[in-house]
Parts: sequence; structure tokens; C-alpha cells
Amino acid sequence: MSRSIVQTDLSGPQYDAWLSYRSGSSTRGGVAKHAPSWIQHIIVNEKHEVLSTAVAELIQGLENIYGVKPTVNQAQSAQTNSDAAPGIWLGTWSGSSSVAGQFSESERTSVQGEGYAIRFNEELGQLAIGSESAQGVLYGTFHVLRELTLTPESSIDAEPLESRLRYIAEQPRNSLRMINQWDNVDGSIERGYAGDSIFYEKGEFTRDLGRIRDYARLLASTGINAISINNVNVHQRESLFLTEHFLGDVARVASEFRAYGIQLFLSVNYASPIEIGGLNTADPLDEQVREWWNVHTAKVYAAIPDFGGYLVKADSENRPGPFTYNRDHADGANMLAEALRPFDGVVIWRCFVYNCKQDWRDRSTDRARAAYDHFTPLDGRFADNVILQIKNGPMDFQVREAVSPLFGAMEQTNQVIEFQITQEYTGQQRHLCYLVPQWKDVLDFDTYAKGEGSEIKNIVDGSMFNRPYSGFAAVSNIGSDACWTGHPLAQANLYGYGRLAWNPELSAEEIAEEWIRLTFGHDEEVIHTISAMLLSSLDIYENYTAPLGVGWMVNPNHHYGPNVDGYEYSKWGTYHFADCEGIGVDRTVRSGTGYTSQYHQQNTDKYESLEQCPDELILFFHHVPYTHVLHSGKTVIQHIYDTHFEGATQATELANQWRSLEGKIDASIYDKVAALQEEQAEHSKEWRDMINTYFYRKSGIDDEQGRTIY
Amino acid sequence: MSRSIVQTDLSGPQYDAWLSYRSGSSTRGGVAKHAPSWIQHIIVNEKHEVLSTAVAELIQGLENIYGVKPTVNQAQSAQTNSDAAPGIWLGTWSGSSSVAGQFSESERTSVQGEGYAIRFNEELGQLAIGSESAQGVLYGTFHVLRELTLTPESSIDAEPLESRLRYIAEQPRNSLRMINQWDNVDGSIERGYAGDSIFYEKGEFTRDLGRIRDYARLLASTGINAISINNVNVHQRESLFLTEHFLGDVARVASEFRAYGIQLFLSVNYASPIEIGGLNTADPLDEQVREWWNVHTAKVYAAIPDFGGYLVKADSENRPGPFTYNRDHADGANMLAEALRPFDGVVIWRCFVYNCKQDWRDRSTDRARAAYDHFTPLDGRFADNVILQIKNGPMDFQVREAVSPLFGAMEQTNQVIEFQITQEYTGQQRHLCYLVPQWKDVLDFDTYAKGEGSEIKNIVDGSMFNRPYSGFAAVSNIGSDACWTGHPLAQANLYGYGRLAWNPELSAEEIAEEWIRLTFGHDEEVIHTISAMLLSSLDIYENYTAPLGVGWMVNPNHHYGPNVDGYEYSKWGTYHFADCEGIGVDRTVRSGTGYTSQYHQQNTDKYESLEQCPDELILFFHHVPYTHVLHSGKTVIQHIYDTHFEGATQATELANQWRSLEGKIDASIYDKVAALQEEQAEHSKEWRDMINTYFYRKSGIDDEQGRTIY
Repeated sequence: MSRSIVQTDLSGPQYDAWLSYRSGSSTRGGVAKHAPSWIQHIIVNEKHEVLSTAVAELIQGLENIYGVKPTVNQAQSAQTNSDAAPGIWLGTWSGSSSVAGQFSESERTSVQGEGYAIRFNEELGQLAIGSESAQGVLYGTFHVLRELTLTPESSIDAEPLESRLRYIAEQPRNSLRMINQWDNVDGSIERGYAGDSIFYEKGEFTRDLGRIRDYARLLASTGINAISINNVNVHQRESLFLTEHFLGDVARVASEFRAYGIQLFLSVNYASPIEIGGLNTADPLDEQVREWWNVHTAKVYAAIPDFGGYLVKADSENRPGPFTYNRDHADGANMLAEALRPFDGVVIWRCFVYNCKQDWRDRSTDRARAAYDHFTPLDGRFADNVILQIKNGPMDFQVREAVSPLFGAMEQTNQVIEFQITQEYTGQQRHLCYLVPQWKDVLDFDTYAKGEGSEIKNIVDGSMFNRPYSGFAAVSNIGSDACWTGHPLAQANLYGYGRLAWNPELSAEEIAEEWIRLTFGHDEEVIHTISAMLLSSLDIYENYTAPLGVGWMVNPNHHYGPNVDGYEYSKWGTYHFADCEGIGVDRTVRSGTGYTSQYHQQNTDKYESLEQCPDELILFFHHVPYTHVLHSGKTVIQHIYDTHFEGATQATELANQWRSLEGKIDASIYDKVAALQEEQAEHSKEWRDMINTYFYRKSGIDDEQGRTIY
Repeated sequence: MSRSIVQTDLSGPQYDAWLSYRSGSSTRGGVAKHAPSWIQHIIVNEKHEVLSTAVAELIQGLENIYGVKPTVNQAQSAQTNSDAAPGIWLGTWSGSSSVAGQFSESERTSVQGEGYAIRFNEELGQLAIGSESAQGVLYGTFHVLRELTLTPESSIDAEPLESRLRYIAEQPRNSLRMINQWDNVDGSIERGYAGDSIFYEKGEFTRDLGRIRDYARLLASTGINAISINNVNVHQRESLFLTEHFLGDVARVASEFRAYGIQLFLSVNYASPIEIGGLNTADPLDEQVREWWNVHTAKVYAAIPDFGGYLVKADSENRPGPFTYNRDHADGANMLAEALRPFDGVVIWRCFVYNCKQDWRDRSTDRARAAYDHFTPLDGRFADNVILQIKNGPMDFQVREAVSPLFGAMEQTNQVIEFQITQEYTGQQRHLCYLVPQWKDVLDFDTYAKGEGSEIKNIVDGSMFNRPYSGFAAVSNIGSDACWTGHPLAQANLYGYGRLAWNPELSAEEIAEEWIRLTFGHDEEVIHTISAMLLSSLDIYENYTAPLGVGWMVNPNHHYGPNVDGYEYSKWGTYHFADCEGIGVDRTVRSGTGYTSQYHQQNTDKYESLEQCPDELILFFHHVPYTHVLHSGKTVIQHIYDTHFEGATQATELANQWRSLEGKIDASIYDKVAALQEEQAEHSKEWRDMINTYFYRKSGIDDEQGRTIY
């Protein structure tokens, strides 16, 4: 705990992100605001690493906000401190009777595990932050710091700080709130757009654990409690993470995350018993194989007693898996689950399984069907410490696609939802794309699994089917870039993901404003402008890219930039079937692949029907003529032209909006975003022209407005 | 000369290629044929490295053919040997009066420089091989060995060997007969499809000079007399070839080629004075820059006294060049020419210059125009030791494109033609594509530069405009592969290129048969089958790839496999402009880019006219509706469908043809080709279906025969 939390060479507002605490007041202009007396003492009566982290965060935060370094009274037992001393009291129910005493029994039992309660006792001048767990105390601490930062000192209308802190109780909605790193040990990041890995370089773990710790605090401040630190595509060298060769390194990284209450997971190679174990099989029913996993799992736990478990991509995109041995996913996952059970570990098994060697000529195979077809027959067969990780949609993180029909289709199976914070298909952190609205749409989607009101958020939080494990996972968007995320405003996606995993009821608008105030302060024009930019960005991006839910139309492999036929004649199962008459994928039962039947009846009916299907997904579900009239009253072709002209115009407006903030934003951030918005504005024209030209050349139908199409 | 010529680990028919000499007789079945007495002695009265090479080749060849090792009588002076001794006499006119004495004065003067004469004197039992140069003697020696191999002993009808050798005189048509290696010092080969470089590995020159020497003998046996050993895209490390760091290595490689009469050239980085010289400019008119080149060129010649000169790709595809300093290509080339002149070196300056950052929306810029537009204004300005190297077509080695209008457009400028033996756009040595017919078409193309009969072959050989330098250059197709060329039958392209550079009047059929007999022997079925395969292969490949001269339609970057729009919306200037009505590039003066005007009048008229333009180039020159009727009587769209169905069928037939030879071909070659022909047959279907589907979807026009289109 003696190490400086923020590295000197990466200090500054880009690096501090939403934890700079420099923006507590819009009027002080760098001068600390007036410090209430109760912030000047911190009292904690327990020894716990995570509580020490909470204290350190409080000290740093308060010092940044008020320019006053609080004293700390950290005692071995509750007896040491007078219960009446003013200050900030941190503690768990069992460890601190003083803290516990500030709350009623029912208040305490209402926040379990990682939940927390906060009370400001005006009489004693005490702020109590309490929880069943040390982790909960840390989350409560971050909550208080957030409130202190979000409360503008000078605002006349605002509720006074103490009043806002009178009583707060928060309970995380999802038990697992996880981040997946797709980092490779060579230092690269699969689908990374923010520099190299902060975990690895040149085949080894990085020696600079400081940056990893700084990442841990960013994550913990949003409520993240789990992380897998290596790519789900586990290559030769990463397979060695389970062995003595790397286990010491993994343990050191685990320590950094442990201090922030974050549990460490590893992605594992299903073929490890062969590749590093020297066996000639990885058959999950083979005794030697099972023993190999038992032994190696025990070794992992010997090094990392609170290790989380394994994340597995198996039988997917050329990764090995149980199919090789004529076993199924349940056989494969349960074998690992058995090895992990003695240590309370879990297996997170990804459902991104489909035929990636499809023949584009074969229109009967539908990649969208694959996950459901593979997994629903296995419902009830998975061990209770297996969790299926299901991507939000059935394809692959497109700007727009249907939601996965797997949610609500497996009542006896633990499920977490997987989002992609890294902007693989959504502009690669060179285009602005605030993803929280997309995630909200998915979470609020009603599956009708148990009738109306069966929203996905109520399935993935475990409540609907009373599952022991539940939650969110998402692919990180960070790297070695100075601002972590390539595009400074892409920090909002990382922040928003964590906040939404904690509480999926938060709105995209609330999260945006919160993030902007924490990051940029309280200038109303700044808040208004950036908020408008963020909240419009997803629609804008959708406007100038693939239309009406059909997806793709990107350059193969790297997935940046327009290429309408980029995946049209490929093996990946990602087609739009545009011809001179029309476009779209017929996924109906009546005349197509039958994918619509994978939903519960109400949704099946909606999607099956050309009339009821929402415009924005029409080409995902139906093949229609260019002259088909949408609910909007426009033809499909005119919709394509209009949205693409509009999208490019909007992208230019985004750049203009940002330029209006010059002088109101830290210059390094201002310049970086200004350059990126310029690039987006230019690149959106490339999208516009390529897509419009493609469809004009193909359909021969003129734009009603006679605009330039090449 | 003591080293074994053929490496032991790479021995065998694949590696020996057309120099195995194992196929002298179709009937002997491995037993040497009867040796005439005159082959048992070799007499040479001069000391010269290249003559020693000729002797060594003769010994090896004769031993392989006849199973008899000839004795060698190698004397210091002409006096040592009796003029009447039977045997094979090798010598130059000035070095061997005995050899010279076998020819009349007019016979001797009819073969100059590298030309040679051969005479069999039946009375004395002497075969004389004479030339003005040692190189000529080596070429004559290879000629004799070829004749010995090509003459089947048992053939009753055949002219007896001695009669065939009674008198032969050969003069190479082109003075420069060059190979360009596109090898990088990291061991990779740009556009290489036959393994890694034989010259370099991991940033250093290979230590195994044996394979380089074996390559030299293959090249020399076809008449090649020059080679550039590094990629025209000269990267950082290759720039050091001009310095002490690598010059010793370059000199050692030069020695291997020198033994076979092949002059070594280097590709140079135009920005060398900056990148390795520490200057802050590469301006060709800057005195320091000129001095830098003078000094470094002198150092190169100190290490390699017979160094050939520099090959330069400047101001092309992001390579540096004189444009940076507002100088032109003549300024740039002449500066290097001045540095090389004291040593009789030459500059070979590539004309592959065009805007590679074009906007696909801009239809007025035409990449095909670029070389002509850049270079013709400079005619007369180039130093006399500058040679322009012009690709056969104006685009880039497509399976079909127009010929470059630069040939015949610069009367006062030395020109060599550049072919591409490596099959970048023609199947990458995984598809069979015998390129000699394509090269023949180009060489026989009448430019009308001086009226009818102004064929390109008469321009590039220097005769038409009486240029001091002339000839052929071509990008090699070899690598570390056991058979050198990836596809064993692709050896025919390397062989054919050398033979054609020597004598462009040879027919594609003659060259094919010669190569087959040398490589596979005299089985008539083998000859007939492989010959038919080779001679049909270019048409077949064209049938199932980009139609009617429009080119491209390949996957970007690597250029393998179909992708109709792969380059359609790119910056490379390589478009087909297909829409729902039609396809093609309008390069006419009347309504297009005006490219047709770059030809001499007769050709301008032919290409400008939709009626006169040959079918196979119609889409290169014109944008036409799919319903346009070709001279063949078919519509464009039906032509596309028909050729693509036919091409895929033909590719399957190629595989069948090859399979009919099982047991008649060395098993290792048989298996390799059989696997490749299978791949081609499969891959041709992918081409067929992708192109047909693309155009069916775009045009909406049904195939007249109702075949399956997806």
C-alpha cells in the first residue's frame, strides 16, 4: 500500500479518467472547495486489505477535492476509538460495532454481500459507510467520493451535500460484474483500439504492476468485481499460465486486483492436457484428462486461493473443444466444473459457437440459429457452478442486431450476458459511439419467457429463474493509451458498463451526465454538449453504416471501414443477399431459416410478420424489395440514401459540437477528441458514398432528392 | 569450383528441373545411352572462370546422359593440344585458334558478344563450341547438352545427333536478359509463392551459397545474363546493402553468379543519402547527394568490379523519389547514371508510377494513363546509361490487359520490358498458368510506331530505334521450395522466359515441348498431355477469373481468390464500374479518360471503336451494357456465365489429364501436381460461383442455359 496509486508519467486528466476529483466545483477554478469538518478524519477499526484500499482512496479523493489531507485513525479493535468521534467511519457489520450501530437491523439486512449503506449523522458529524463485506465498504466509499464530486459547491438550488448523504443504500443487481481482457501475452490485444496490452509485453507479464492497479481502481469505482486477464482465444504460450512458468506472475496480478475486491479469472485452452500436459487426448470423460485438470486447478488455487475460475471458448472459431471427442458442451464444462468445485470456482462457458466454415452458397444454414440450437438441448445438464456466457445478439456485436433468443430459453442454466465495450464493429474508438443505449435496449427487451415483464435484465440477474450465478461480462476497451481507451469519450462506455452491471435501471442519460460531471466538471455547456454528442452517437453511427439491422458491410478481418460485400462471399455466415431487386436475410419460419421460432411466441409473431417487424430490424429478419415501404413511410432504398446522407452530416455536426468546447476542456483531451471527430466526419463520408453507390449501382433506383451518388 | 554443384539434400528431379539430363532416352529406363567417342574428351586451351563452368557443366551433363565421365584436357595455351585430337573443343575466337579455326571468318563475325557457333567435324570427330566471349561458350555448351538430351537415341525417324550438331549459330536477340528478385532480407519474398528466399534469412544473407549457385546455373542454361537480388521496394535494412555492413555478402553472391556469366544488380532506395547517409535531403541536384552516390557507387565497384548497376522504384507506391524535391524522373535517374558511368554501370528505372491514393469516386483519373503521362515528356532527357523498365501492360500484370503504350513512344530512350514470372494475379503457383503465350502476344503486338511491323519485340530488342541498351526483365517465381517454383509445372514459365528473352521468335508450343522433354523425357503421352495442359492453362484461368480484360476482382493485398468488388472502392485506381446496367472502364477519347490516344493511330482507332475493339479487351476500353453483343455473337452477360462455367469444367479436366499420367512421372512430382490440380479444380468453382452470382444479382439477367447461379 506504500506505492503511489497513480504513476507519475501517466498522470493527468486523460489518465485519471472519472477519478480525477478535480471537478468538484464548477466555480473554484482549481482552488479546493471548503472542507466540512467531518471529512478531516477517517476512522476504521478493522484490518482488511480492501478496507485499506478504501481508506487510501478516501485520502486521495478528499485531498484532491478539498486540498486537505484527512487524518486516519486505523485501530485493531472497535474499542480503540470513541464512538462519538466525528469523521468518516468505515466498517463491516461484523467488524465494526460503531458502524453497525449507525444502522437499524433491517437497514443492515437489506444490503447483503457487496451491497452497502451510508448514513450521515448530523448530530455527531459522522458519515458511516457500512456493509456485510469489505468490498461493499469500498463500493460505498467510491459512492461517497462520487457524491462529493457531483455536488457543486456553489449551486444554490442543489440539495446540500449532507442532506444527499443522509441515507443511501445500494445493492448490486448482478452478482458477477465482469470484464474480459482479450490481451495476448505478446502484448497485442485482439480487437484492441487503445494501444498495446497493459498486462503483457513480448511474451512476458509486464513488470509495471502500477498501471494494472490503476486499472483495478477504475474498474472497482464502477462496481466491477471480476476480470479475466487473457484472450478467450488462448494460444500456445498463454496455455502456460496454468503452469509454474507463469503462475507466479498471475498471482502477482491477482494481488493487485484483490486489493480492489476484484476476483481474477483465466481464459483456458480446452486442449491444455494435450498441448502442455503431454496427454494424447483432451476427452472430458477420460480419467487422465479429468485428473490433469484436477491437479492443475489445485495448483492454481495454491497460488491464488481466491481465484475465480475458468473462462472457456471451446469448439468455436477453430478453438478446440469437446466436439473432437464426440462429447457435448455440458460434458466439457462439467469436467472443468468438477475440478473447480472444491475451491468454489466457476466455469464460464461461452455460447459463441457456430459453423465458421460455412459455404456462402448454402442459404439454409443460419449462423443466428447456432447458439440456441447448440445449447438449449443441454438445459439442465450443466453443473451448478457452470455459467453460460451469451453475447447480447445472435451474430456478433453488430451496431444493430436482434437480441439472442437464448435469454429465457434455459431455465435450469446459469447465464451471464456478454457485451463488447471495445468498439470492434462500432467505430474502433476512432468514431464516437456511446454504447449504453444499445445495452439498455437489450436489457429492457421483453423475452416473454414467463409472460409479459420477462425482460432480459431480470433473466441475467438470476432473479427470474432463481439461478445462483448471474450477471454481466464485457470485453474491455482499454490499452496502454494515455487515456486508456483511444478515444477519450470512449471512457464513458467503460464507466457506463460498470454502472449498468451494478444497476441496469440507470438510464443512458443519467450515466452519461454522471460520467461527464466526474470527468469534465459542472460547466453546463460542457455537460449539455458532450451529453448530446454521446446520446446521439450510436444512432449517427448506425445511420451511415449497415442499414436496417442487416449488419457487417465492413472490411474483412480488421472490421474497420465500409465494404458492402466484404463478408458476402465468405465462410463466416454473415450475408446480406443484396441483388438488383432487394436485400435482407429471410429468417422467417414461413419461407426462411426459421430462426424467428427460437423466440417466445409474442416475439416470434412480431418478427415473423413483415408488418409488425420493427423497421430497424427489417433486413435482419426479412428479404425485401428495395421498394418495400417501411413504417416510416419511406422505401428501403430511400431510407438507405436518406440515413447515409444524414449520418455523414451528423458526423460533421459532432465535430462542430466538440469544437464549440475549445478552452473549456483540458487541452490534451480537447485536441485528441477534435482530431478524432475530424477523422470520423471524413470517414463517415466514405461510408456514405460507398454504401449509397453500392445500392444505387445495384438497384438502379435514383435518390428522390437527386443528391450526388457515384 | 570444387564444390558439388547440386546440394545433396535437394537432389532429385524436382530440384534438378530441366537440367537433370536423366531423360535423354525414352527407352533406356535409367540405363545410360551409347556414348559416341567424341564426347569422351573435353579440350579447352584457355583459363577463364566461365569456361571452367562450361567444362564442369559438360562433365556433369555427359556423365548423367551417357554414364561416362569424360577426360578434360585443360591447357594454358593453344600449343599444348594437337588440333587433330577428337573430342569437344571449347574456346573463344581470341583464346583458341583451334576452335576459331573450325569456323570461317564470316561465321565467326556473325555471332558477336554472347552469341556462339557450334560445329561437328565428322572427319576429326570434333565438336567445336566457339564464341567471342566465354559467356557465349557457356551458352553454346548448354545448347549442346540440350541437343543431347532432346535427341532420343532410339528414335528411328530422328535426325542423327551428329547431323543436328553439324552447324549451329545463335545470337541472343536482347542484350539484357534479366531476372528481378523481390526478396527481402528478412527472408520473405514479395509476391513469392514458392517458399522463402534462397538469398536471405532473418535479416542476413544466407550462408548456403550452394543453392544460389544452383539457381545461377538454371538461369544461365536459359540464357539469363543479369539479376537484381533484392526487392524493388527497398526497406531500411536492405538499404545497407550499399555499405560495408553487407557489401562483402553481396560480393560473395556476385561471385556465384559471375561463374555463370550473370551480372549482379542491386535495387536501391532513392532516399539512401538520408536513411543511411545521414544527409537531410536526397535531392538529385544537390551536390552533397550526388557526391554521396558517387562515393558509395565507387565502393560497390571496389567490392564488385563487374557490378551491373542499380534498379530503382522511385515515386511509386509510397517509395521515395525525386518528386519530393520538385525534380523529375530524368533528374533522378541521371544523377545515379553519372555515379555509375565511370564503371560502365547502368540505371534501370521503373516506369510503374501512378497515383496510388486515388479517390474511387473520381472517374477522370485513369491509372492506365499514368506511366505514359509521366515519362513521354522526358524522352531525350535520360542519360545514355539509363534504361526505363516498362511493365508489359499499363496496369499491373493482369491475366489480360492492354499492352503498355509506352513501347514505341520514346524513341530516344532505352527501354526494357518487364514481365512477371511469379504468378501474382495468375493463380500464385497454385493454379496452372503457362504465361509464355501471354508474353508472346505482347511481344508480337504491332505498335505501328514506325508503321506496320513495329512489334514490341523489335522495340525492346533495341533494333527499331537503334538503342544501345535493350532487353527483358522479369520478376522471378522461385524460392526455397524443393521444386523451386511451388508448382512443378511453373518451372516452364521460368524456363520459357529465359528462352524467349534469348529468342522472342520461339513459339509457346516449341518452348513447352522443349521444357517437357528436358524435364520429363520423351514419352509421347507425357509430352502430349502436359503440353496440352500448359497451352490451354492461360485461357482456362482467364475463363473463370475477371472477364473481358477488366482485370482485378481479387482479394485485396494478397491477390488470391475471387472478390469482385475487392478493389472497387479502393484508392488503387483499379475499378470495373459494374452497375445494374453494365460494366467496364470507358477509356475512349470520345467519352472516357482518353487513354486510347496514347497509342499510335491505328491502335487508337481500333480501341476507340466499340466495333473494332477485340472482345477480350472490350471491358478494358469500354463501359458497355450487359446486353452488348460481342463479336462472338454472345452478350456480355452470357459470355461471363459461359466462360465461367466452362473455365471451372476445364480446370477439372486439367486435374483429370494430369491423373492420366500416374506412373509415368516421378512420384514426388506427380503427387505434388495432382494435389495442386485438385485445389485448382475446387478453387475454380469458387471463382465461377462468385463471379456468376455477383453479376446475376447485379444484372438480374438469367443464364440462357438455366445453370445454377446462387
